[in-house]
Amino acid sequence: MSLNATRMADLTPRHFLWHAADGIATIRLNRPERKNPLTFDSYAELRDTFRALAYAADVDAVVLASNGGNFSSGGDVHDIIGPLVGMDMKDLLAFTRMTGDLVKAMIGCGKPIVAAVDGVCVGAGAIMAMASDLRLASHDATCAFLFTRVGLAGCDMGACAMLPRIVGQGRAAELLYTGRSMRAEEGAAWGFWNALHPAGELEDAAMVLARRIADGPTFAHGITKTQLNQEWNMGLEQAIEAEAQAQAICMQTRDFERAYNAFVAKERPVFSGD
Amino acid sequence: MSLNATRMADLTPRHFLWHAADGIATIRLNRPERKNPLTFDSYAELRDTFRALAYAADVDAVVLASNGGNFSSGGDVHDIIGPLVGMDMKDLLAFTRMTGDLVKAMIGCGKPIVAAVDGVCVGAGAIMAMASDLRLASHDATCAFLFTRVGLAGCDMGACAMLPRIVGQGRAAELLYTGRSMRAEEGAAWGFWNALHPAGELEDAAMVLARRIADGPTFAHGITKTQLNQEWNMGLEQAIEAEAQAQAICMQTRDFERAYNAFVAKERPVFSGD
Amino acid sequence: MSLNATRMADLTPRHFLWHAADGIATIRLNRPERKNPLTFDSYAELRDTFRALAYAADVDAVVLASNGGNFSSGGDVHDIIGPLVGMDMKDLLAFTRMTGDLVKAMIGCGKPIVAAVDGVCVGAGAIMAMASDLRLASHDATCAFLFTRVGLAGCDMGACAMLPRIVGQGRAAELLYTGRSMRAEEGAAWGFWNALHPAGELEDAAMVLARRIADGPTFAHGITKTQLNQEWNMGLEQAIEAEAQAQAICMQTRDFERAYNAFVAKERPVFSGD
Repeated sequence: MSLNATRMADLTPRHFLWHAADGIATIRLNRPERKNPLTFDSYAELRDTFRALAYAADVDAVVLASNGGNFSSGGDVHDIIGPLVGMDMKDLLAFTRMTGDLVKAMIGCGKPIVAAVDGVCVGAGAIMAMASDLRLASHDATCAFLFTRVGLAGCDMGACAMLPRIVGQGRAAELLYTGRSMRAEEGAAWGFWNALHPAGELEDAAMVLARRIADGPTFAHGITKTQLNQEWNMGLEQAIEAEAQAQAICMQTRDFERAYNAFVAKERPVFSGD
Repeated sequence: MSLNATRMADLTPRHFLWHAADGIATIRLNRPERKNPLTFDSYAELRDTFRALAYAADVDAVVLASNGGNFSSGGDVHDIIGPLVGMDMKDLLAFTRMTGDLVKAMIGCGKPIVAAVDGVCVGAGAIMAMASDLRLASHDATCAFLFTRVGLAGCDMGACAMLPRIVGQGRAAELLYTGRSMRAEEGAAWGFWNALHPAGELEDAAMVLARRIADGPTFAHGITKTQLNQEWNMGLEQAIEAEAQAQAICMQTRDFERAYNAFVAKERPVFSGD
Repeated sequence: MSLNATRMADLTPRHFLWHAADGIATIRLNRPERKNPLTFDSYAELRDTFRALAYAADVDAVVLASNGGNFSSGGDVHDIIGPLVGMDMKDLLAFTRMTGDLVKAMIGCGKPIVAAVDGVCVGAGAIMAMASDLRLASHDATCAFLFTRVGLAGCDMGACAMLPRIVGQGRAAELLYTGRSMRAEEGAAWGFWNALHPAGELEDAAMVLARRIADGPTFAHGITKTQLNQEWNMGLEQAIEAEAQAQAICMQTRDFERAYNAFVAKERPVFSGD
């Protein structure tokens, strides 16, 4: 019996594209003519989808892909920023909490997320890339945390916490105070992008990476994802004890035994995620 | 009515140079013949000035500039180190707390600080650069956390906490254990310097950057600065909630509305910091 | 009288090589024909040795060296992974805690550790390099956190906490999810290696660095090491206060006075570690 018995391959979301096969789900926003902005509806549906993924038995890795040459232009000026300008504090906080909940759901979904970023990747789109576990980009990718340019602070959906841990405190401060675009080569040199690929090869590269992850010990990957989050602000010695417990759990999986048996037999291990 | 009603343009500090105009304050130490060492007096006056800046209505960004080709040679050997050698623990702790209070005041002043570092930038001078939000340097900048070379530990004024977050734990350890100079190119590659400029163009570049910041949504910038500090050791999920609250506050500013209106009118937004 | 009165120069460990002279201890695993795997015995003896080092009066720095062209192949497949596959949870946790205790002992030993990594450096071997304070490598060094390849999670002995602080969250995630090898040049560019050297010059370079550290103010170095650990998850303002206290302690050492006197006499300071 498994408590992770949900199947999500046949999901039919209304506000983004979804394709799932062989353990890999691909998500892409779908207003390419406007560079794929987020709307209230797509925020909420993405949040719910990542929450559901924690219980999905048929998805082991997620690819957040681009569409029509762009990743996402972030919160739509007309559909989101306009209404926000007129809201009272209760509704504003409900909105910022919903956007934060999307990031929390991505972090908590238990499956590694690979972002494949082509073209525009700004605002909340940049946050979705940042909240992914691995990030590939094309040489044309333009990423900007442009909140300051619409009069807001850089602290959006976790940016002041996460961006410094990815690119360092000084570079994060520059991106957040100025809202300037980070060029693809800068992002690769700074560790924001794990690798750059020509636009035409980007999604294949992301699928290869997701495949490699989905073919691995997926239960253990989920523990890796959990611990990268859990240990965020633990003391170093507490983190070491937490890892002793977490890794001991993984040592009781059949995947660990499979790897040992394969090694002894001089074969390549085949993992099953249990 | 504003509680931030202090005006600081006419400040006449005794122990460093001060110039404030159009929302940008420029500070520079002023003993260029000795590469601008810090003294007990300048430490204290700098601390008080950064504390006052939190309430200043007429300063939106600070430039920490060099003088006579150097930034700062740190705590003066004769004026500071000599007296410290003879002090009892009560006075030593009063001194180290005062130096730490300068960093706390810089972090808490609410205005982004841009360091413009030419030449020598060592010891407490390197700390002042490190505690700035953005750091530009000339190709001749030499930065060293040289505490170990005077028999002390690398943990001075927050260095063991801040330097690893800027350049990574391994590079920080090397700089702190050896006290060696970080070359300008290293510092740029490691993310300590945001950019390098020829010495003759350095201060102009810092002013352009400070201008860009001061012309932005300065209330929101203050929130960005607050959150970068606040979230230093928060859990990731707690940081996301903290940002939901902080950004909701910024969404009630007129600057947010100004940006939206400018966008709709296809104009460039003009921010007022409220 | 000194509470740090143990002498360790004559240590005769059974499961690794030990050489100590002039304040520098060199440790190397010693099964070069199998690329120096760790065993239950060597784990335990290393843990006990690093614990003892905290009280050693005659060791000021440690070099973790390679042997026969390799650093370490990590936990031995036959001696460790095989037995683990059959263990119950009580014994598994006892094992993961012991490996974690080795890292805790390295962090807590009070002496800077310089890793000199040639050739293979994988699994628990990569962890020992990561848990060192400074890391030099040869151009042939191959480092992999390959836990995922044996069906385990990346959270081993503190890796999910430490690796992101050294190379950034995004690069750490890639190394931990894929288990792929980090090339020497990547590791240098990312700040994992402090410097690369030709294999034939690597150990000399490590000894020069360890010598520089051991000739420095070793009491203060111990405080630096303590604070880099202590401040791992402190608030920034709490870290600054902690450093005020820690540095005030160092200002009462004779090494601080020696440095001042040497400066006044225009001599090079000679430190004694008290």
